[in-house]
Amino acid sequence: MAYRQWVRDELRGLSKSLGFRYTPFKEIEGRISRIRKAMETQGMDALLVVQKMDLYYLSGTTQDSLLFIPLEKSPLLLVRRELERAKIDSPLEDVVAISSIREVPALMQGHCGRLPSTLGLELDLLPVRDYARYEDLFKGLRLADASSLIRDLRKIKSPFEIELMKAAGEIGRETFQKGREILKEGMTEIEFGGHLETVAKGYGHEGLLRVRSLNYEAYTWHVLSGPTGGIVSQSDSPMGGLGLSPAFPVGASLRTMRAHEPILVDFGTCYHGYQADETRMFSIGTMSRKFIDAFHACREIHDAVLGEIRPGADCEALFLKTLQLAKRLGYEDSYLGPPGLQTRFIGHGIGLELNEPPFLAQGHSYPLEEGMTFAVEPKIVFPGEGAAGIENTVLVTRDGYEILTPLEMDILEV
Amino acid sequence: MAYRQWVRDELRGLSKSLGFRYTPFKEIEGRISRIRKAMETQGMDALLVVQKMDLYYLSGTTQDSLLFIPLEKSPLLLVRRELERAKIDSPLEDVVAISSIREVPALMQGHCGRLPSTLGLELDLLPVRDYARYEDLFKGLRLADASSLIRDLRKIKSPFEIELMKAAGEIGRETFQKGREILKEGMTEIEFGGHLETVAKGYGHEGLLRVRSLNYEAYTWHVLSGPTGGIVSQSDSPMGGLGLSPAFPVGASLRTMRAHEPILVDFGTCYHGYQADETRMFSIGTMSRKFIDAFHACREIHDAVLGEIRPGADCEALFLKTLQLAKRLGYEDSYLGPPGLQTRFIGHGIGLELNEPPFLAQGHSYPLEEGMTFAVEPKIVFPGEGAAGIENTVLVTRDGYEILTPLEMDILEV
Repeated sequence: MAYRQWVRDELRGLSKSLGFRYTPFKEIEGRISRIRKAMETQGMDALLVVQKMDLYYLSGTTQDSLLFIPLEKSPLLLVRRELERAKIDSPLEDVVAISSIREVPALMQGHCGRLPSTLGLELDLLPVRDYARYEDLFKGLRLADASSLIRDLRKIKSPFEIELMKAAGEIGRETFQKGREILKEGMTEIEFGGHLETVAKGYGHEGLLRVRSLNYEAYTWHVLSGPTGGIVSQSDSPMGGLGLSPAFPVGASLRTMRAHEPILVDFGTCYHGYQADETRMFSIGTMSRKFIDAFHACREIHDAVLGEIRPGADCEALFLKTLQLAKRLGYEDSYLGPPGLQTRFIGHGIGLELNEPPFLAQGHSYPLEEGMTFAVEPKIVFPGEGAAGIENTVLVTRDGYEILTPLEMDILEV
Repeated sequence: MAYRQWVRDELRGLSKSLGFRYTPFKEIEGRISRIRKAMETQGMDALLVVQKMDLYYLSGTTQDSLLFIPLEKSPLLLVRRELERAKIDSPLEDVVAISSIREVPALMQGHCGRLPSTLGLELDLLPVRDYARYEDLFKGLRLADASSLIRDLRKIKSPFEIELMKAAGEIGRETFQKGREILKEGMTEIEFGGHLETVAKGYGHEGLLRVRSLNYEAYTWHVLSGPTGGIVSQSDSPMGGLGLSPAFPVGASLRTMRAHEPILVDFGTCYHGYQADETRMFSIGTMSRKFIDAFHACREIHDAVLGEIRPGADCEALFLKTLQLAKRLGYEDSYLGPPGLQTRFIGHGIGLELNEPPFLAQGHSYPLEEGMTFAVEPKIVFPGEGAAGIENTVLVTRDGYEILTPLEMDILEV
């Protein structure tokens, strides 16, 4: 059977029957319209989107493509591989095949009648070598950095996006609940993490979390037991865990988990690209008073932050207040990491990537806005002993917040 | 307990007891010495390594660091987070903390007595925005592209690296064998993939495969059954599978697997950063004659390639010969993908990344060398019906090859 014909006849039906949801035209239209307004304020008359998540956000597909968005004509999706799938994914009308980026200038010119004068690119991620190729292809054009525009646009979530994040949160809830049946004494951290991932994938979890960064890899099996909860690693996180090797020194290890230890599970889920981040503590039998108390302190800090979430609340102020509260609760030296290695944030924006604005962090004095989504994660770390913490993903609503990770907030003792 | 003290006293012992292996001093010394020779030929008097896998290769750690390699002084590892772990991981002597890249020029100057005149950077991956910061920090220095030097160096594997790749291959063998017990009719593709990953992680598989690319994400649960084996996606691969959504349109889907279908499992393993890539076909009961025949054709092509592997064999010639053989076997239109979408390679180098040289591909006319490692993967695709294939990772030895993925090469029928 001819491939193209089969895809046209069968692929959409097969995909839909297996749970695929496509970004509606109205959604893409609204995003394009907003990015155009931002482009105008920056004096860019066109954008060339290259990064996978930005492309998904603005076109609906993650097929290997470039998206050309001129100010005054319709967007043009240029697909390297695979055209027929991109046509199914994307509600955009102008979708064409390219075999090389050398074809791009002529296609842009043909589409608009002329080349733009200032072309925006995602310079926060675009490699220098690729940029040099664009400079060569687009001689005479001014190339400008459009990454902030796109990041800024993406920080307010639409009802459609919130629906997908809620679906990710639901997967998390099911997974943590199944975790209570799965966790057994003598299991290794990584084995528990593997089982959790299998459960989550069965509900459509995509198995990876995305971080906008050259080197920062995300993963979903952050299972830390006893002393591994007290280990800091490469990431800007209160604790990183031991991991599996010097090449993967984060998250779950091959350590065997024992009864009465604190077991901290920071497990994010990803549904249709949208992420929900969540932490709960498990224990096999009761943990020591020290960790139960530390958990309750984290819960108190978590609740205090949530109590102040509303449009207009200042992100830095929210963070700084938690420092005061942690101190009053007696955790000044263990809050957000060991002394000298404490992180300076209590929340990070989340959506298609794990490091989106807003950041509830030192130096980030700006207001929360309706439609922002972020994870709040107070953690307390005792070197050599373990970690305590809780984390939920929340949405800023018109007059407060909504939790997108609807799981009970107690210690999950088995 | 003080964190630094705990790490110094306990972390190495705990890590070693859980299977961590550290890159020996001799190994790093040899690599540094070879990269220096390459730098000299290119007129670079220093290198600043920023990318995670290059950093691991040249320093032994993946903690958040930069590695400064001058021609005439010892290498200097500059660690953002976390210093004590980097000191355990890396056999380098000069390891210092930095809190910002602004400190780097002064530290380089202090270490060498002067700044270099030409500084090599990995421009194939370094984002433009980071590069602009370096240009600003290193005014007056010539910045040059060092990525090819490092990639070139990494393509010949040492006995230490081969040992780690063999360990990854062993994990793959155990995993595929356990797969025979796990696979059941009515299981979804992703569920089977999840179970395979859990098994592999239990042996130390790190759960991700790395690709040197801005947008190309790798994953390990490539489980394709019946029609999903006939679907092409964003990657340069004969088939990509359906995946889970437009945001993750590759690999296993939520499709329920049925008896007598071809089930293609392309599952790579990663041990201490080193990867082994492998494909086998499973079936529940016997598959149709068409797919059994196609599998045997792939096996014949695979064996023909392996029969010609030795130092000096031309990579492009090896690929082109398989086109002739596939044609003679009657698979001209289904070999390596559907017509119009066929890929143009039969093998890809593998090590710390999945897209290393050598490429057994059109346009890649250069000789194989002793110590190269690559995956050989003939695949045959029938749109709407499924895929057949086999894949092994091999090492070029002095007079032939050695298979690093030691699993039986038949259809795994359950």
